[in-house]
Amino acid sequence: MTIREQMHQVKEQSKRLASASLDERDDLLARIREGLVRDWSEIASANAEDLARAEAEALKPALKARLVFDEEKRKAVSMGIDDIIALPDPMGKVLEKRELDVGLVLSRVSVPLGVIGMVFEARPDALVQIVSLAVKSGNGIILKGGSEALSTNRALARSIVRSCQGTRVGAGWILLLENREEVSVMLTARNDIDLIIPRGSNAFVSYVMEHTDIPVLGHSSGICHLYVESDADFKMACAIAVDAKTNAPSACNSIETLLVNRQVAPAFIPMVAKALRGKGVVLHGDAECAALVPDVVPCRNGDWDTEYLASELNIHVVGSLQEAVEHINRHGSHHTDAIVTNDPEKGRMFQQQVDSADVFVNASTRFADGYRFGLGAEVGISTSKIHARGPVGLMGLMTSKWLLDGSGQVVSTYMGPHARPFTHKELV
Amino acid sequence: MTIREQMHQVKEQSKRLASASLDERDDLLARIREGLVRDWSEIASANAEDLARAEAEALKPALKARLVFDEEKRKAVSMGIDDIIALPDPMGKVLEKRELDVGLVLSRVSVPLGVIGMVFEARPDALVQIVSLAVKSGNGIILKGGSEALSTNRALARSIVRSCQGTRVGAGWILLLENREEVSVMLTARNDIDLIIPRGSNAFVSYVMEHTDIPVLGHSSGICHLYVESDADFKMACAIAVDAKTNAPSACNSIETLLVNRQVAPAFIPMVAKALRGKGVVLHGDAECAALVPDVVPCRNGDWDTEYLASELNIHVVGSLQEAVEHINRHGSHHTDAIVTNDPEKGRMFQQQVDSADVFVNASTRFADGYRFGLGAEVGISTSKIHARGPVGLMGLMTSKWLLDGSGQVVSTYMGPHARPFTHKELV
Repeated sequence: MTIREQMHQVKEQSKRLASASLDERDDLLARIREGLVRDWSEIASANAEDLARAEAEALKPALKARLVFDEEKRKAVSMGIDDIIALPDPMGKVLEKRELDVGLVLSRVSVPLGVIGMVFEARPDALVQIVSLAVKSGNGIILKGGSEALSTNRALARSIVRSCQGTRVGAGWILLLENREEVSVMLTARNDIDLIIPRGSNAFVSYVMEHTDIPVLGHSSGICHLYVESDADFKMACAIAVDAKTNAPSACNSIETLLVNRQVAPAFIPMVAKALRGKGVVLHGDAECAALVPDVVPCRNGDWDTEYLASELNIHVVGSLQEAVEHINRHGSHHTDAIVTNDPEKGRMFQQQVDSADVFVNASTRFADGYRFGLGAEVGISTSKIHARGPVGLMGLMTSKWLLDGSGQVVSTYMGPHARPFTHKELV
Repeated sequence: MTIREQMHQVKEQSKRLASASLDERDDLLARIREGLVRDWSEIASANAEDLARAEAEALKPALKARLVFDEEKRKAVSMGIDDIIALPDPMGKVLEKRELDVGLVLSRVSVPLGVIGMVFEARPDALVQIVSLAVKSGNGIILKGGSEALSTNRALARSIVRSCQGTRVGAGWILLLENREEVSVMLTARNDIDLIIPRGSNAFVSYVMEHTDIPVLGHSSGICHLYVESDADFKMACAIAVDAKTNAPSACNSIETLLVNRQVAPAFIPMVAKALRGKGVVLHGDAECAALVPDVVPCRNGDWDTEYLASELNIHVVGSLQEAVEHINRHGSHHTDAIVTNDPEKGRMFQQQVDSADVFVNASTRFADGYRFGLGAEVGISTSKIHARGPVGLMGLMTSKWLLDGSGQVVSTYMGPHARPFTHKELV
């Protein structure tokens, strides 16, 4: 079978997952978790291969750390599977229910999208998490991980297939892709893939968006902001700025620009600069910031639109909350932005006017995450306004279907001069 | 200002609509309704111009009928506005609310998408309906109607602008486009338009989907089916078939193919054929149908995939419910499909397995409509699985935003060996 034919097979076979009961899907998840123990020696030696290759190719330490899939990681993903088993069924939720007339009942229920195409970074634990979300949500999954983790991903996918074979649902709903040519084929598989979720560099995500007419969920950049209002608690603002920049500088929900109200700039900026520099952050400052803090890198054209993904941060002085909002809506990527203020009214104004997926008051932008949000886990964060916005958990992998249950009703009864009226009585 | 600059203006100005209270938006709707009376002579003479041009250009009677905007149509759209005023506010709905930790509360609330770009047919009443949905949902609207109705559309748009000027919100949220070149500009206005809803021919909708990277909501064809199961009530099945084909043959929710279970074909097909022919329907039959009914047009390759949009219907005999489902999933356009059966279990199987936006049991496919569904009105019907599926009412014009309200929380507190646990307590 060609890879294209295999993708079509996934579409066909995934119908068995879509029609599986919650018990069947949770049982598959438990089998997958147990399979990781059964197949541990195979998985561990595959991971050793990947690590040896990473060593030989002198990969960066951060990348090597992500590649590791040891007993600790196995336990972590197993706990993740248990968390997902514990979640309520995302399928068959009655989202609306309405009587149109006596004996004519309309409902809108959640159903799986079909098949998800997912590209993710070289982190084998992500494979298990993504597969678990797919199983719980009843979606087939076609996935491609970072090539550095190929051996581990193969061993994990083999283990998952082995765990599901012989069940009523089987293992036909999963397909691991192994190279870029196969990803190119995936981008053209309009009839067999319902949603593509690319994770990776801006360039890669943009490439995917331009080369497919399948809907794409994700974000190409995370230019996030923290705005410190004139009435902010300085200690709180400092702690949030440090967390939002340094907790994980390369994460998409870390801030790239700190906006400070002019009234408090002379007092606050030297204080926050000291705290950030203490954590190794390189500061880029506008002229007002430079006058307050020695040796900042002067901000240049384009800095406001740059995602550093590193320990670098712009500091920009603004005259008002309104100016901060305008800066964020112009230069941000509509991902996650936060304000520090003691005035709930200003917080509400900021939340109303900032046009981003996540808008926070007095909390770090780093909270923008499916696990922290209580979604169980996430497949990604969407900056699209269509379908799912922000961290995408199980419900982001669902669509809905309108079901109408009648007893022979025809539309002509409800039209014309003697039209029978609809009752339109809400039932949920 | 160029048309592109005007589109940017709509994006900017629509923020005032997005932040308007429910009372303000309902007040605008009432002003628009009253304005149609105030400006009636202008609107009526503009409509007379369009009708005279239609006469001169010898347009088809059906098209001319749609162009008419007389007192009766004005009253109908005014009642439509009142219906929309009576609907609950789609904005600011709390869709999820969860305590992440004490003093750290997450909510997901509905917010307008921003600006909708809409192309619709030569029906001036549609303009008023679309504008009303935009106002209620807090979205700016850029719209282009069929050129045959240009004078009436201009007069209506002028009246709407006049009604809203001088209010706090103003009239900057609406822009009427007048030609195809302006539509082309709209398709490229990625930063200023959030969703495009094209109504029109398949060719036009496909053109739009191929020529924009703005999300598009709609359907390019409506190939709908009615399946008559072996246990169906014949009288009910006949009545539904006649309604689903002849109530409005050119509507997207009318059926193109009638599937009949082989067991009842000899008894049912002659009966339904007689009823359909009595309404002037041309029947295309497969070989089994042809053996039962004289003079059907023999089905040819491609008929299963054809949207007739006319009084023509395929009749196809199938061996089982399963075969009917497979036919529908292969040849349908995932729009609306129905079954007639006396067995609720078969109805459920059909609803579970047919992969369409609307799946009905014992009711006509013609019920697939925002008004009949109780959505107040519709801007269109979506066969996309992403965002909104089926008839799209107010909620289909909304997106959501995650709001997090904290008291200084940082993520590092919730990580590492001494991580504070999240409470993740559902509040809604």
